[in-house]
Amino acid sequence: MIFSSGIFLILLIFDGAFSTPAISKSDGKYAPTWESLDKRPLPKWYDEAKIGIFLHWGVYSVPSFGSEWFWANWKNGGKPEKEFMRQNYPPGFTYQDFAKDFTAEFFTPTDWAAIFQKSGAKYVILTSKHHEGYALWPSKYSFSWNAKDVGPNRDLVGDLAAAVHSKNLKFGLYYSLFEWFNPLYQADAKANFKTNNFVVNKIIPEMVELVQNYTPEVIWSDGDWDANDTYWKATEFLAWLYNESPVKDTVIANDRWGVAIRCQHGDFYTCADRYNPKVLQNHKWENAMTLDKVSWGYRRYNYITDIMTTAELITTLTETISCGGNILINIGPTHDGRIDLIFQERLLDLGKWLSINGKAIYKSTPWKHQNDGITDYVWYTSKNATVFAISLEWPKNNTLKLESAVELFENKRPIVTMLGNLEKLKWSINKNRISKTVRIQFPNKATVACDWAWVIQIENPTLVHVVQNSVYN
Amino acid sequence: MIFSSGIFLILLIFDGAFSTPAISKSDGKYAPTWESLDKRPLPKWYDEAKIGIFLHWGVYSVPSFGSEWFWANWKNGGKPEKEFMRQNYPPGFTYQDFAKDFTAEFFTPTDWAAIFQKSGAKYVILTSKHHEGYALWPSKYSFSWNAKDVGPNRDLVGDLAAAVHSKNLKFGLYYSLFEWFNPLYQADAKANFKTNNFVVNKIIPEMVELVQNYTPEVIWSDGDWDANDTYWKATEFLAWLYNESPVKDTVIANDRWGVAIRCQHGDFYTCADRYNPKVLQNHKWENAMTLDKVSWGYRRYNYITDIMTTAELITTLTETISCGGNILINIGPTHDGRIDLIFQERLLDLGKWLSINGKAIYKSTPWKHQNDGITDYVWYTSKNATVFAISLEWPKNNTLKLESAVELFENKRPIVTMLGNLEKLKWSINKNRISKTVRIQFPNKATVACDWAWVIQIENPTLVHVVQNSVYN
Amino acid sequence: MIFSSGIFLILLIFDGAFSTPAISKSDGKYAPTWESLDKRPLPKWYDEAKIGIFLHWGVYSVPSFGSEWFWANWKNGGKPEKEFMRQNYPPGFTYQDFAKDFTAEFFTPTDWAAIFQKSGAKYVILTSKHHEGYALWPSKYSFSWNAKDVGPNRDLVGDLAAAVHSKNLKFGLYYSLFEWFNPLYQADAKANFKTNNFVVNKIIPEMVELVQNYTPEVIWSDGDWDANDTYWKATEFLAWLYNESPVKDTVIANDRWGVAIRCQHGDFYTCADRYNPKVLQNHKWENAMTLDKVSWGYRRYNYITDIMTTAELITTLTETISCGGNILINIGPTHDGRIDLIFQERLLDLGKWLSINGKAIYKSTPWKHQNDGITDYVWYTSKNATVFAISLEWPKNNTLKLESAVELFENKRPIVTMLGNLEKLKWSINKNRISKTVRIQFPNKATVACDWAWVIQIENPTLVHVVQNSVYN
Amino acid sequence: MIFSSGIFLILLIFDGAFSTPAISKSDGKYAPTWESLDKRPLPKWYDEAKIGIFLHWGVYSVPSFGSEWFWANWKNGGKPEKEFMRQNYPPGFTYQDFAKDFTAEFFTPTDWAAIFQKSGAKYVILTSKHHEGYALWPSKYSFSWNAKDVGPNRDLVGDLAAAVHSKNLKFGLYYSLFEWFNPLYQADAKANFKTNNFVVNKIIPEMVELVQNYTPEVIWSDGDWDANDTYWKATEFLAWLYNESPVKDTVIANDRWGVAIRCQHGDFYTCADRYNPKVLQNHKWENAMTLDKVSWGYRRYNYITDIMTTAELITTLTETISCGGNILINIGPTHDGRIDLIFQERLLDLGKWLSINGKAIYKSTPWKHQNDGITDYVWYTSKNATVFAISLEWPKNNTLKLESAVELFENKRPIVTMLGNLEKLKWSINKNRISKTVRIQFPNKATVACDWAWVIQIENPTLVHVVQNSVYN
Repeated sequence: MIFSSGIFLILLIFDGAFSTPAISKSDGKYAPTWESLDKRPLPKWYDEAKIGIFLHWGVYSVPSFGSEWFWANWKNGGKPEKEFMRQNYPPGFTYQDFAKDFTAEFFTPTDWAAIFQKSGAKYVILTSKHHEGYALWPSKYSFSWNAKDVGPNRDLVGDLAAAVHSKNLKFGLYYSLFEWFNPLYQADAKANFKTNNFVVNKIIPEMVELVQNYTPEVIWSDGDWDANDTYWKATEFLAWLYNESPVKDTVIANDRWGVAIRCQHGDFYTCADRYNPKVLQNHKWENAMTLDKVSWGYRRYNYITDIMTTAELITTLTETISCGGNILINIGPTHDGRIDLIFQERLLDLGKWLSINGKAIYKSTPWKHQNDGITDYVWYTSKNATVFAISLEWPKNNTLKLESAVELFENKRPIVTMLGNLEKLKWSINKNRISKTVRIQFPNKATVACDWAWVIQIENPTLVHVVQNSVYN
Repeated sequence: MIFSSGIFLILLIFDGAFSTPAISKSDGKYAPTWESLDKRPLPKWYDEAKIGIFLHWGVYSVPSFGSEWFWANWKNGGKPEKEFMRQNYPPGFTYQDFAKDFTAEFFTPTDWAAIFQKSGAKYVILTSKHHEGYALWPSKYSFSWNAKDVGPNRDLVGDLAAAVHSKNLKFGLYYSLFEWFNPLYQADAKANFKTNNFVVNKIIPEMVELVQNYTPEVIWSDGDWDANDTYWKATEFLAWLYNESPVKDTVIANDRWGVAIRCQHGDFYTCADRYNPKVLQNHKWENAMTLDKVSWGYRRYNYITDIMTTAELITTLTETISCGGNILINIGPTHDGRIDLIFQERLLDLGKWLSINGKAIYKSTPWKHQNDGITDYVWYTSKNATVFAISLEWPKNNTLKLESAVELFENKRPIVTMLGNLEKLKWSINKNRISKTVRIQFPNKATVACDWAWVIQIENPTLVHVVQNSVYN
Repeated sequence: MIFSSGIFLILLIFDGAFSTPAISKSDGKYAPTWESLDKRPLPKWYDEAKIGIFLHWGVYSVPSFGSEWFWANWKNGGKPEKEFMRQNYPPGFTYQDFAKDFTAEFFTPTDWAAIFQKSGAKYVILTSKHHEGYALWPSKYSFSWNAKDVGPNRDLVGDLAAAVHSKNLKFGLYYSLFEWFNPLYQADAKANFKTNNFVVNKIIPEMVELVQNYTPEVIWSDGDWDANDTYWKATEFLAWLYNESPVKDTVIANDRWGVAIRCQHGDFYTCADRYNPKVLQNHKWENAMTLDKVSWGYRRYNYITDIMTTAELITTLTETISCGGNILINIGPTHDGRIDLIFQERLLDLGKWLSINGKAIYKSTPWKHQNDGITDYVWYTSKNATVFAISLEWPKNNTLKLESAVELFENKRPIVTMLGNLEKLKWSINKNRISKTVRIQFPNKATVACDWAWVIQIENPTLVHVVQNSVYN
Repeated sequence: MIFSSGIFLILLIFDGAFSTPAISKSDGKYAPTWESLDKRPLPKWYDEAKIGIFLHWGVYSVPSFGSEWFWANWKNGGKPEKEFMRQNYPPGFTYQDFAKDFTAEFFTPTDWAAIFQKSGAKYVILTSKHHEGYALWPSKYSFSWNAKDVGPNRDLVGDLAAAVHSKNLKFGLYYSLFEWFNPLYQADAKANFKTNNFVVNKIIPEMVELVQNYTPEVIWSDGDWDANDTYWKATEFLAWLYNESPVKDTVIANDRWGVAIRCQHGDFYTCADRYNPKVLQNHKWENAMTLDKVSWGYRRYNYITDIMTTAELITTLTETISCGGNILINIGPTHDGRIDLIFQERLLDLGKWLSINGKAIYKSTPWKHQNDGITDYVWYTSKNATVFAISLEWPKNNTLKLESAVELFENKRPIVTMLGNLEKLKWSINKNRISKTVRIQFPNKATVACDWAWVIQIENPTLVHVVQNSVYN
């Protein structure tokens, strides 16, 4: 009997990727259930790293118009996209016709990695495949729709991974589960996800291939929202990732694994794009945001006003770190393989700021308070017995008033400095009927090397500091 | 247990393509064995049709250099191909980069079908997919590597099928089982075909999709030679095709289904390219040949001497039909959707010849003799009690000598004419010690409309003619 | 005083092209007047050659749609052209944008020349520049709008000239005086041709450059019709061409030199495209016609019915030669440098015919009669005492009746043969009250190698034949 | 006599461009001699404007590799250019083949003009034609090698001129006299510039066309260095420009008009690229410099370190204005019509600075001293009785020491402020045996809005200020 009742029995062997998985807790393996997976401790490196670079690169970088959602917007009636196509391409031009012009001729991975390193970021996450389905590596499961076969003629994932590793940065991979226009996906969707050929034959094998070939230390899943985690075989994949994969001890995965999973399960939560809650979270999270406020992929028709200023970037970073998040700073490389100069400038500015103030960021933990009670441009981080008050503005009259930090001063003798300056700062406590504040005297601004934001370090060797790390299992 | 011993159990449901197949002979279904399949009678239309058009069209039509094997030749070190690429494209140009320029802007399927009809062909077979893997229809299993997604932005298979049907011609599909550079295929090959992901997830589903969507009446398989029929699941597919498919009663399939199958199993045998044995075969066969002697796909850099003359075409056709074969005349359309004028001319010439002489071709059967015993440019066909002697040359002194046909004349009173001429021809029998010959007096050539070859019709109402059809089960 | 009254005085020195021209008749030089120029004897080679190849090649070969008038038709509202552009190109695409894709990568001049030689043609004329203005050679006066600078990156004129000469064929150049969209021309036109910057700075220097660099033996002017010969400086140019140029003794020029000049002045008359008057002319003339009945430049979207058959070609040739014309057979090469196979086939067919019948064509002169009085498919040529009756059909009953040739038979003993056959043909004279005819018995057609048309040679050593050459001064 | 001694006499009429020019001084017209032309007073607007934007845009913006000298470097053996071409283009690719891809689809002239206006620049100069010869307007003298005919399909000069004027900025045109590869130029060069067809038929008519069509208020000539001013007909052109042209009263022209003319003649001197002498000049001059330190045209393969910082830009501007120059700040737009964001950022930063400090720049004149005697980061400008000391650094201890300005303080009561701050600054004079200095107390830096450089305004109503304007005739 060959085709019984219209059903094939298929043995899909993944090159020995999956050895016999034991699923009982007793042997130290994770079961493919959220209950089990959620018990995994967060690999330490990630929380310490704080800052990552996010790269959206794909065929959309060729039109580089609108955003990385160009294809979907165009086909779903987006007026600017339709008009752009009408004015610049023949009527029958397809999205896939763009791929040939994804040339990447200026892609020099070591130059990119050097820029990322100088920015102070500690990890780099590349879109191995976005919703368009185009693979940036020679996927065995995406013949002729990948960067080796059409366009760059190059393994972009592999080349960038090597360069990033050579700078001692961690390398991670974004991967879109769904593909807008893949007919296998569309067939499953049409069947209300009661079939899963797409996941079984394409998605799981491709993710396994990625993990095995490039040993990424972050798996940044996306495009999950239309189907349940069971459709995506999310827990099975994660169990394999944590139990068997070559990165099982160090890898972290995000939370985008199906309807109602986001912000509920996963090593770290992303919750929403540009997620920045400004209050302490009870689970490790990440603020994935983008320097081009309007797009994640490179756009050509942009105004400088669409690009975050360095001040805005440092503000967002400060708020994020203060509340226990990591920040994932996105830029879109160009179709010809360059990092736009404006992004280089922002990243290098950030690197300059971190070279002075990184002490308050890397390996820091949230403090008891995040945002000061009266001076709303001040955010706190801490490290052991030291608390950092990060001031996003230079205070009027050179005097910073803090309310939330009073406890660090009252009846104590903290050593107060501004990072980057040797000088000890004077302070005093003011009381009135309603509140107590501490007033810290800033140095002469002309003597301060740093720009954009200033970190007041409050050291108190006698203080028993409550480490907040425990909130993240 | 999810991933047991590295093996996925997959239920691949083909949209109800396969209903419960009964495999016992008792219910009239074919079993997926050659023994069973070989018992299927040949659908009558095919043997009667005699002449088909073969179309090789694909991404190779863009470089249109060398042949449709351009990609493989280039990558395997073909000097002209390498040099062609070096001189005309940048170093990193990939084969897939050509696809965008497969524009097909002049493809007018009804014009094509009109030409094919005028040629006298009765069926048309299009390469739905050649060894490059590029699908000429929007294959669900070849996302972004098909004619809808990149290049023509059009369902070439569907559009041609409709046009061909509108001219009352049969439509068939060539399909290459293997794909040179598909990594899924390469993985199976590397595993000595002990794995079969490629066949299970790509080839079978794609062939089923083709049959269901386009109801082709010929399946012309190819690219089988590196693996066994079991790898290709050939008998299973054919059993489905004959038992369940929408074309189960009329479809015919060829013989290229794996190592040692060709010329042994299948509805008709192709044996080799340009197969022309010149002796009667004991199984229905087809001579797939090509008007460009050097290539099946369109080539740009060609000389008129590479193109078969009309005389050569009619010679090959005559030899083929005489020995029980069908002829499948190949032409390669251009990347922009045209049938080269030289091919149009050949086909229309053939049509002119058949408009006079088709009686000796269509629905004919091989006669007792195929090639005359003394005049080697004469070939025979027959229809009921009529025998046709097709003379590929105009005989010297206007007198045709035949040996093999003597029995039709001796002691009989056949009516002898030249097709296209009303005049009854004079004949006489000559004997000598060694042999008997009949001499037929040709008409004044200036009165003959026909060119290239001339058919002598020998009608004898009293003759009990042995129909040769039975050689084909 | 530099700019007097808005006028520059400019000394334009053409590299010494023009040495002191003597213009009086006494020193054997031609004056720049038609009266003087018309006295020039026709160089002998041209009338003897009879058959030339005409090549229309340019940027229009890239769209290869409609005809070589694509640009003008498109801009002047041609619906098919507008629709073609709308469907296949972005809105802002310009005609000049096509030039880059004029690749000519398969252009092998020696292959071309070999085909032309095999066709039996004795000269080849290339469009050095058509109305589009694009120069097929690196014109000093057409920077960046010539085949060396954009597109082929090659001196197409020079390369073809060398190849044509290597086959002992004559080489000539077509040159369009006007350029549809050249603003310098448009400015002159707007000034009612009272200014002539375009002619002085572009046209005359360019023609001089062509003559000096490529020594063409035919100058085939065109695009003259909107202005007078005085605007074009036609007589001055021709006086230089005949008096001073390196080809002064052998060159011939046509008649398209301004309003009312065509068919009135020039070495040979072209009168109109496809000019075929079918009666004897009193001045040397040329029938420039094109194998693609619809276009001179290569067209892609064509039907085989648009292409002249070999029979039609030989008919036109026969009529033309018989009436004293030369025939200039046009074909349009492709943008990638090929001669379409259908044109190759026509030319080689012609070559086959001429290999048998060329005796009646080359160096022939018109006879007293051109078209027979009763058999309208017979045309005459002559050579010394021999007359050739070219029969465009095979006569019924193998008997050709001629009226106009009776004088060659009556009371004479001509030797009558068919070219290509040794056999002497029988003839007889028939008289009735109205007329006399001679009846010539054709051979058995099956013994005749030739196709399409048959030449009856009537040799009469005693006849004093009136040579018609004298009609051409 | 038509062609006497190989010489044409040509009357070139420029559409009435030149009416009868009187050349005697008596009628107020300039003679075509430097002696006469040098007497022309500098139109006032230019010296007052101080800051211009320079735009290098052309076909080189398509490869955008190396610099705007790409073509010459490539053809003259530049290794990076050769390698770039080898890796990214087929061997026969020509420079002109790039033109089609000069798409300019994002060119929105009003957006550009808005950026330039916000930068504080008062005039904008566009390369109407660079050494490549490609015209950015539909030049009548450059058919098919201009932006209307190939590439943008648009009058880039006209469109930008209108937008710039709409923002009340002045518009000027750069124009390269020579064209590297124009064969007409090369012929003149080969003749040691004893012929001048190129100048007479192309350069002068083209410049006249530009002036008449676009009424530019700056003519920025370049590419003059290989030939004498007499070859270029420089003085004749300038006499026409000053006497007759539609911009005769307001236009200014630079000094690049032939060997030994630069820095000697012309309305303003450019002397060298990035000319910044740092001492007062005795003639109006301009520092044409470029934000990309390596290139004037847009380059793709660049590092942020190649781009001038805002501080560097303001330093250069300050030095330039202080010494009597104008600054012409160059940026290279992209092939698709964008102003790179990094350039937008620099220009907007400059605009911010000028919104506070413009008073010290626009309409300023050099002061008696330019660079302070002891504090080398201070440069002076003046306006009537007010002197501005521009400090490129924030002084240590908030105290600026000046030597050269002492005379403004000693025995006087100047009002000293920092631009952008209301507060009057304290100062004191220090003497020692060697020198006198004035010490100015800077405000608290935290109260200062301005960045990069700070302007100290020293007002003294009683001072009789020596206006330096007179150095420029």
